[in-house]
Amino acid sequence: MSGRDERSAEDRLIARFFEPIATHPGALGLSDDAAFIKPPPGCDLVLKSDAIVGGVHFFPEDAARSVASKAFRVNLSDLAAKGARPLGFLLTLALPKDIGDDWLEGFTQGLRGDAVLFACPLFGGDTDRTPGPITISIAMFGSVPEGTMVRRAGAGVGDRVFVSGTVGDATLGLMLRKGKDWKLTEPQRQHLASRYLLPQPRNALAEAVRTHASAAMDISDGLVGDFAKLCRVSAVAADIQVPRIPLSDAARAVMAADPVALESALTGGDDYEIVCTVPPAKADGFRAAAKAANVPVTEIGEIKPGEGARFLAADGRALSFKRMSFSHF
Amino acid sequence: MSGRDERSAEDRLIARFFEPIATHPGALGLSDDAAFIKPPPGCDLVLKSDAIVGGVHFFPEDAARSVASKAFRVNLSDLAAKGARPLGFLLTLALPKDIGDDWLEGFTQGLRGDAVLFACPLFGGDTDRTPGPITISIAMFGSVPEGTMVRRAGAGVGDRVFVSGTVGDATLGLMLRKGKDWKLTEPQRQHLASRYLLPQPRNALAEAVRTHASAAMDISDGLVGDFAKLCRVSAVAADIQVPRIPLSDAARAVMAADPVALESALTGGDDYEIVCTVPPAKADGFRAAAKAANVPVTEIGEIKPGEGARFLAADGRALSFKRMSFSHF
Repeated sequence: MSGRDERSAEDRLIARFFEPIATHPGALGLSDDAAFIKPPPGCDLVLKSDAIVGGVHFFPEDAARSVASKAFRVNLSDLAAKGARPLGFLLTLALPKDIGDDWLEGFTQGLRGDAVLFACPLFGGDTDRTPGPITISIAMFGSVPEGTMVRRAGAGVGDRVFVSGTVGDATLGLMLRKGKDWKLTEPQRQHLASRYLLPQPRNALAEAVRTHASAAMDISDGLVGDFAKLCRVSAVAADIQVPRIPLSDAARAVMAADPVALESALTGGDDYEIVCTVPPAKADGFRAAAKAANVPVTEIGEIKPGEGARFLAADGRALSFKRMSFSHF
Repeated sequence: MSGRDERSAEDRLIARFFEPIATHPGALGLSDDAAFIKPPPGCDLVLKSDAIVGGVHFFPEDAARSVASKAFRVNLSDLAAKGARPLGFLLTLALPKDIGDDWLEGFTQGLRGDAVLFACPLFGGDTDRTPGPITISIAMFGSVPEGTMVRRAGAGVGDRVFVSGTVGDATLGLMLRKGKDWKLTEPQRQHLASRYLLPQPRNALAEAVRTHASAAMDISDGLVGDFAKLCRVSAVAADIQVPRIPLSDAARAVMAADPVALESALTGGDDYEIVCTVPPAKADGFRAAAKAANVPVTEIGEIKPGEGARFLAADGRALSFKRMSFSHF
């Protein structure tokens, strides 16, 4: 080698597809081995990583754009539930040999759109070949004023339980995708399908959660199982009024055709809504802050002394579920 | 579900294998959706992520402990080259169905050993199933006093070029593993094999690099190609004296049997040594700081005006290489 300026194919791939997403000066245009960021003064960093795998978390035929958004938003949703403001992310991508520029074009367009939309730019990462399926791992970091990250632990007896948006759409959307047919209208089908395909994380609610909630988490593995974890770590029980749990019109249409689908809706994953507990004195303030943030929230129950969350039907009977939540293991 | 405290298999896996590595209070014992950390006052955070894939970056039969160390140390090596002190890491793990507790036991023992050794605990992550090979992604964060992260850009004309340790052992170790036979002694074989299997990142040198170097990077894809990147981003040229490049006794034995292996040693990956440039006035100080840190460093050349790094043989002729560095693309 003499004076030739020979750039590797990997460098060209970074320059073409990823550099446009790396807008923070500390990312150094992805020209370095690492990036740097000055954390906001008086803030803690909030750290999260999550991966999605082709054929496990998304369908191989899903559009590259929506795959990117899913990988990005499952992490963003955790930051929202912790009350954190996004700062940026790192990406590691393992790609099969037959993935071409078209896929990367769509993937990075999706990522770029979300990075701008959520003010959360790329700081760095790594791209590798794999003999397996597309595997996308994102590590995301955000900030909260020191000591204010909202935890799963912290729910107190008497706290009200709130949930954002509607519950169960995504898992019903996945069931539709796998061939279930509940004679829905086309708009109903599309609503459920898009809720599975493209999470809408509740980052607009983050500040309201941070300033009002005693405990919070996002619902990624199903309301029943996830809320049980919150109760366990908080060392409390809860009574949840199942008829109060917010369902979309499409989900209500499914329940009308197939009442058993309620269990799937309450225990299935991929909702990416926030469940949180709010002390009674702060409940009105939380409602007002959520309204100002334009995020619907619904009070669904109350924290009780003891252990375990009960999901109560209209007649006061506690429901029992075959399985509580989605698990890979 | 009633009051039962039903924990998922994934929760048990986390509690058994990963919680012991999550020693920082901000990791919340991995019981939450995210972790938090207060960055050291007056410091920037340094961010890095890198993944390794079974059958690509390691052999399927490699011991789980050494796979863990490799995944961990390739990231640690980047922090070292940037002059950063490690703070912690996030892990996403995609595992085939047939991976059992024995593998996880070995893997997490390796990870735990390194987390303690390098004072870099686990803050969180995610474990998923994959139909593909074991895929391990680590995002690591460290700190430097504000504005002092050592970059690839920054080398100035007249700066001395230093490299730590010895160059090329890992790639020769990989060639041995793939069946090459250079009639080495058993200790020589073992030296090269272990340099491939288990990177020894130069974190002990980080502070010396931060306080003396004008530019630095770790050698993960081969000295020739990586140093060319440093020169390109710094907009300088360099003359490197090939006879001065430090080689281990084992590597010298290989060259004696097979002079062509020199090209592999200089362009092959996985060294995880540091190459850096140091202004002449700081060169003695750097040597002294490296000695105090017990890390061997060797001056191998000088930064020149122009473009491109020349690798000069004993007779002053510039070597040319078939390929400059390892690339997946």
